[in-house]
Amino acid sequence: MDVISVIRTKRDRGELSPEQIDWVIDAYTRGVVADEQMSALAMAILLNGMNRTEIARWTAAMIASGERMNFDALSRPTADKHSTGGVGDKITLPLAPLVAACGAAVPQLSGRGLGHTGGTLDKLESIPGWRALLSNEEMMHVLDTTGAVICAAGDGLAPADKKLYALRDVTGTVEAIPLIASSIMSKKIAEGTGSLVLDVKVGTGAFMKNIEDARELARTMVGLGTDSGVKTVALLTDMSTPLGLTAGNALEVRESVEVLAGGGPADVVELTIALAKEMLDAAGIKDADPAKALADGSAMDHWRRMIAAQGGDPDAALPVAREQHVVTAPESGVLTRLDAYGVGVGAWRLGAGRARKEDPVQAGAGIELHAKPGDTVTAGQPLMTLHTDTPEKFEYALGALEGTYDIAPAGTAFSATPIVLDRIA
Amino acid sequence: MDVISVIRTKRDRGELSPEQIDWVIDAYTRGVVADEQMSALAMAILLNGMNRTEIARWTAAMIASGERMNFDALSRPTADKHSTGGVGDKITLPLAPLVAACGAAVPQLSGRGLGHTGGTLDKLESIPGWRALLSNEEMMHVLDTTGAVICAAGDGLAPADKKLYALRDVTGTVEAIPLIASSIMSKKIAEGTGSLVLDVKVGTGAFMKNIEDARELARTMVGLGTDSGVKTVALLTDMSTPLGLTAGNALEVRESVEVLAGGGPADVVELTIALAKEMLDAAGIKDADPAKALADGSAMDHWRRMIAAQGGDPDAALPVAREQHVVTAPESGVLTRLDAYGVGVGAWRLGAGRARKEDPVQAGAGIELHAKPGDTVTAGQPLMTLHTDTPEKFEYALGALEGTYDIAPAGTAFSATPIVLDRIA
Repeated sequence: MDVISVIRTKRDRGELSPEQIDWVIDAYTRGVVADEQMSALAMAILLNGMNRTEIARWTAAMIASGERMNFDALSRPTADKHSTGGVGDKITLPLAPLVAACGAAVPQLSGRGLGHTGGTLDKLESIPGWRALLSNEEMMHVLDTTGAVICAAGDGLAPADKKLYALRDVTGTVEAIPLIASSIMSKKIAEGTGSLVLDVKVGTGAFMKNIEDARELARTMVGLGTDSGVKTVALLTDMSTPLGLTAGNALEVRESVEVLAGGGPADVVELTIALAKEMLDAAGIKDADPAKALADGSAMDHWRRMIAAQGGDPDAALPVAREQHVVTAPESGVLTRLDAYGVGVGAWRLGAGRARKEDPVQAGAGIELHAKPGDTVTAGQPLMTLHTDTPEKFEYALGALEGTYDIAPAGTAFSATPIVLDRIA
Repeated sequence: MDVISVIRTKRDRGELSPEQIDWVIDAYTRGVVADEQMSALAMAILLNGMNRTEIARWTAAMIASGERMNFDALSRPTADKHSTGGVGDKITLPLAPLVAACGAAVPQLSGRGLGHTGGTLDKLESIPGWRALLSNEEMMHVLDTTGAVICAAGDGLAPADKKLYALRDVTGTVEAIPLIASSIMSKKIAEGTGSLVLDVKVGTGAFMKNIEDARELARTMVGLGTDSGVKTVALLTDMSTPLGLTAGNALEVRESVEVLAGGGPADVVELTIALAKEMLDAAGIKDADPAKALADGSAMDHWRRMIAAQGGDPDAALPVAREQHVVTAPESGVLTRLDAYGVGVGAWRLGAGRARKEDPVQAGAGIELHAKPGDTVTAGQPLMTLHTDTPEKFEYALGALEGTYDIAPAGTAFSATPIVLDRIA
């Protein structure tokens, strides 16, 4: 087996054989296939595609590159959720303890933000004392005792994917549906969850800009999960505007706690409950009522225990950025558009995100929204508040926000986009 | 400027801007753009193409990465030839001194073999004492005093191409017409020749397996040369069967000397004279008669002087391989096919070529043919003789030769493929 013949097969629009896939993933993990060879193959896959058989084998080979976890010892069925990433997407934070409160075990291996989308671990790290890095034993202990755990995936899980993901990030080969699907699903299947709900984002703030691509990605992932014995469902959800009223680490934790306290923005509550119902259904848990668990404080109890079990203080004050800048409405009328990508880039430029994996993030930085599409605004009222520790970045962030919203004359008809656009099972 | 936006432009079928091309070639040469990024871009170019404007700029940027030579000080017009590579293609050896004998200066910067095609420098190095590496001053001196020089291109010429060529070789991105054309032409234009004749090979033993691809490559290169002020002509020539009766280093030198002595195989003589006429015509030299220069010994005189000027002894005995193995005709009839690729791989396996740039080659190894397509053969007569210093390779080489020839019943009609298939100017 040699790597050039593998590259040529895909380059010339052929189908990669199971042996070619197994060999190339293993050889790349061991460093026998070089980065420049794998990136050429990744570009050929991006441009020429892979069929369902190839994607399944590619995913299996990435799983086989590392260890597999097992939750069979738990007394409760496991349910996991994965979002393809968006702006203001803090749903994992209220969702994991909520679903735990309803009777499932939620092992939520999460990531950090890169580019304009935030990362769940970055958000939780704004809680004083909270630790993202747990050993496998610690993770099982938190999960077993609190019903939910949100932590970093260990190095042992799908190491081929880790290496390939970092490579794709610097070679313009991120946006390949077969590679996105196999990357996500290899980690989720190796993690050993019994059921999985995928939140596939669609819109300007998401990887998938149109619903056809999102649907193809969702179908691919549901197929991979189902074929591997994981009960898998996908919701296609709107990411044309930010979720909720905050984008930034501590800002989003605060909003999540509001949801757990029975309040919070309507869109965040709606999506949290929709995903919770899917997770409980996939885990085979009947008669649970997520809305009630938010209202009666049981979800909040699980949150507090989960945060405390990972060293965090749920009562500690959250970090606040040193400087604020308010953007006001230039005219009165109806806010008809507020672009998720622009807000995401703005928050990133303020310090909420990172340009490179090694960069730190600011806990307090981000954007707070005071109006959402459909809201009536008055000239001069605050539209958003920018938060940062590095005020010299205000101008840079404001540049990203230029042209990201439209205000139409008062009385203009506005039809809201539903949060859940489609369901694929 | 960032490399991912450049990769994305080509990945998404866009046109690279002049600024993007200049930047990426310069940044790659300086090591700012990494190998894994350039290989992803090369694969995107291979699959999505470049238009004439992009190819011209890409070529110019590779020329600008290094030094340019200048032959204006010579009293004679310069003419160069480049072959895209084939099996048994020793034409440069008799051609350079022949064209020098007819009044042009022939600065022939040549390469080494890689894979199944031989390299001109490897062939000449089988002559005891001959040196391929000359300084620019030495090269000009040999050219000025003997009319021709065949040597390795200096490191200063198009370093971007050197780096990119080595990368393409290991990433399955060699077979991209825009990259092949710009690689060849950047070196030839930087070298400073006034005119250039391209020998674009077509057939199993060539990079271009079909005439349409060869024509596109020829048109692209002729366009690049012409636009840069180099008078450029291309001949499309047959490479479905080996040129002449030898494939291997010293074996091909011996055959070249036979041609210079007025003998040699008809196809080698025909192509040598056809290319010589094109070179002389492109250099603006009228009334020269290459056939006469072969017959009257003047081409041989130039050969002897050129070899001696580079330290070689034109009278020294050429190396002979330690072992021979004769393949005989299994039946009587007409040899209707003798595949160039099979013979090339066979000679390579015997030790005439190298798998990696660092490998040595055997001077005496190769294959001697005793019949060519169209010849009548008798069962049991020698069809080819295999030469090697490593007889344990005979079996390996014989494997490559299996199924490479057809013998039809005596009297079967045979129509020979012409050597020159087309001419593009």
